[in-house]
Amino acid sequence: MSQAFPRPLDYRILGISELAPVMAKVANVAAILGGNADHWQANEISDGNMNAVYRLSGPNGSVIIKQALPYIRVIGEDWPFPVSRIDYEAEALGWYNRLTPHQSPRMLHHDHQLGVMVMEDLRHHSVARLAFIRGQQFPDLGVQLGDFLAHSLFFTSDYHLSTPQKKSLAATFCGNAVLCETSEDVIFTSPYHHHPMNRVTPGTAYMARQLRADIPLKLAATQMKQVFRTRSEALIHGDLHTGSIMLRGSDNRVIDAEWAFHGPMGFDSGVLIGNLLMAAISQAGHRQSLREQEDMSHWLLSCIHQLWQRFTRRFRALAHTHAGDFITAMHLDAESLDMLLDRHLHTVLADSLGFAGAEIIRRIIGIAHVEDFEHITNPSLRAELEQQALQIARQWLLKRHEFHTLGDALLCAERLLCRPIQARIKQT
Amino acid sequence: MSQAFPRPLDYRILGISELAPVMAKVANVAAILGGNADHWQANEISDGNMNAVYRLSGPNGSVIIKQALPYIRVIGEDWPFPVSRIDYEAEALGWYNRLTPHQSPRMLHHDHQLGVMVMEDLRHHSVARLAFIRGQQFPDLGVQLGDFLAHSLFFTSDYHLSTPQKKSLAATFCGNAVLCETSEDVIFTSPYHHHPMNRVTPGTAYMARQLRADIPLKLAATQMKQVFRTRSEALIHGDLHTGSIMLRGSDNRVIDAEWAFHGPMGFDSGVLIGNLLMAAISQAGHRQSLREQEDMSHWLLSCIHQLWQRFTRRFRALAHTHAGDFITAMHLDAESLDMLLDRHLHTVLADSLGFAGAEIIRRIIGIAHVEDFEHITNPSLRAELEQQALQIARQWLLKRHEFHTLGDALLCAERLLCRPIQARIKQT
Repeated sequence: MSQAFPRPLDYRILGISELAPVMAKVANVAAILGGNADHWQANEISDGNMNAVYRLSGPNGSVIIKQALPYIRVIGEDWPFPVSRIDYEAEALGWYNRLTPHQSPRMLHHDHQLGVMVMEDLRHHSVARLAFIRGQQFPDLGVQLGDFLAHSLFFTSDYHLSTPQKKSLAATFCGNAVLCETSEDVIFTSPYHHHPMNRVTPGTAYMARQLRADIPLKLAATQMKQVFRTRSEALIHGDLHTGSIMLRGSDNRVIDAEWAFHGPMGFDSGVLIGNLLMAAISQAGHRQSLREQEDMSHWLLSCIHQLWQRFTRRFRALAHTHAGDFITAMHLDAESLDMLLDRHLHTVLADSLGFAGAEIIRRIIGIAHVEDFEHITNPSLRAELEQQALQIARQWLLKRHEFHTLGDALLCAERLLCRPIQARIKQT
Repeated sequence: MSQAFPRPLDYRILGISELAPVMAKVANVAAILGGNADHWQANEISDGNMNAVYRLSGPNGSVIIKQALPYIRVIGEDWPFPVSRIDYEAEALGWYNRLTPHQSPRMLHHDHQLGVMVMEDLRHHSVARLAFIRGQQFPDLGVQLGDFLAHSLFFTSDYHLSTPQKKSLAATFCGNAVLCETSEDVIFTSPYHHHPMNRVTPGTAYMARQLRADIPLKLAATQMKQVFRTRSEALIHGDLHTGSIMLRGSDNRVIDAEWAFHGPMGFDSGVLIGNLLMAAISQAGHRQSLREQEDMSHWLLSCIHQLWQRFTRRFRALAHTHAGDFITAMHLDAESLDMLLDRHLHTVLADSLGFAGAEIIRRIIGIAHVEDFEHITNPSLRAELEQQALQIARQWLLKRHEFHTLGDALLCAERLLCRPIQARIKQT
């Protein structure tokens, strides 16, 4: 982790006072802010792990400025990290702005030399994860996330792009290799060993040891890592958890695409499903009333169900209407195309469940945890809920090829889930 | 097919008289040829479909000069083709020279501007396909081809390379997209339709029509195309048929790697197996005596068996001794690693059978045929043997996931094969 990465020649870490003069030269940003740059106000709002993030406000509006630091912000210079990640984020956000314009913040400016990206300020949106912890529901969310997955994955895959187009896209994102390697480490490797940066709730420590000694589970995680490393199916966000989704009523946006690369479709859907499941399970730690807890958990599970239904239906529809030569050159009739899509989407389902399982495990016994569990102040309740999530994750990872539908997998989850949570709630 | 591709600025098609003066400036080539460039002798020996190929001879030795033309040589300027293919061939040959130095011609020189590559002259070697048609056997061949597959695939895969190393390699070969696209067309698409350039032996025409109406087969071919387009597992040769292998006793070399890219491991093994099977089946058209025919066919089938045994054993051994962080970071014990390898090699087997089937079909009802069948002068015997090969190809493609071992697949082939060939031979 002590390796330094090349930086652009003119790169420097911007001081907060430099933001206004630097942005004054960017016409479209200046127009949004309005007035005189001397009166623009900059505030640091960094709350992710990785970058320096600022809000720059003027009389007419505000923007978000994100600068990639040459290290991981929350760790510091001991963990150098490539500034180029902002270029891949900008590239991915450009694709999202074109493919799902209503579900990504508008990209306003990208400065490769400074490692800076400027985008629409979503100041009235909430981070989905925190909204779920607060018990907020968003009726359209499942359908919209399904649309996001279908559009972002279909149009960047071989189902739509020609081979030269796809290979050009894939080659571009091969440059984001250090971030891919880091994902592999923190998701598929470190959680399964005694890594110095792993953390675990004391009550979950015994189960963590069990999981680390579970050879079939370790093999399944290794296989998912192999899928992650070898399958070039679509441009994927690469970190599509509920902290990367901003919500406001029926408006939702996907942010923080710096981990993007051309990889397996099931990774984005799997990470999303895994995080929604953790949100559902952790409700027992956030709601006092059993009715409220059940209602919120039920909504989150239905959200998983809806996003999968919508994703698969939409993907299927796009394959019938917007297929590239991979499909059209075969002159398949509609029924045959559906058979092909059945098999493809079945593979994506198995991958999604495997990745969801891996995501849940790494968020509970690995390096980077989630507020869904961390915000539960009662440590024994937190441990109990974590263990339920781990049980489901293990089943999904090991049996990912055996589930015929996502409904089957959710049923398996609900069986492992409902009773003990209810019992616990009644005790407290 | 009328699109022109960018060429290097200084590119020009070399006349045969220019070869000596151009090569006189290349010290290592001049040293091999010896004497004065004025007395070097150039002969055109182009016999592949794609490039201009020359032998340049001097008093001390000779070299092979290959120039990529801006079109496909046997078709002409109507089918423009990127000169850059020679750069990818040189890059791939560089890898082979390092990884399997005794099984590839030594690369002596690469001139990007001229689209030229110079390599060791294998003037005493025979093209494997023609040697098989003549009835020659090479006792070590199966084992050596297994070694070639194991070394070239293992050391360019995630099993050995780090993620940044692998992605850098994959990105480089993404540039060879036009050749990949052409492979997709001629292998997985055109054979399944009425393409104007398809050819078929008259006696095989009925079966060709049946295959083109066979929806499950078409779906299987489409799935193999998807594997070809999406799996980035290893640097593959991309056209490893028996015309790309030069033999001389126990010395064998793999040539013509211009179709190389980072793709599915099973493609190289599958194309090789498919071509060895066609060689075995076509023996009935080349040997007068039943005993000779059986002996040669049996040797070719045992060659398939040996290459697979050797490939899988060697790959397995390398994974235990030369694994990269993908494996080592998981700290698997030897038994667990073997389980992981079992599953991986089982997938490679299924892919190999699918690709072998697709290769056989495209060589019989597609654009580019093989001498194994073309050199059979009796058209009804040729058609009969082609149809046997097509039957096996169809079974392998459709049932590729059902065979537990390569032995099972060969048994299935032999069942479809032996009796009718013997019957036919006895009649003639």
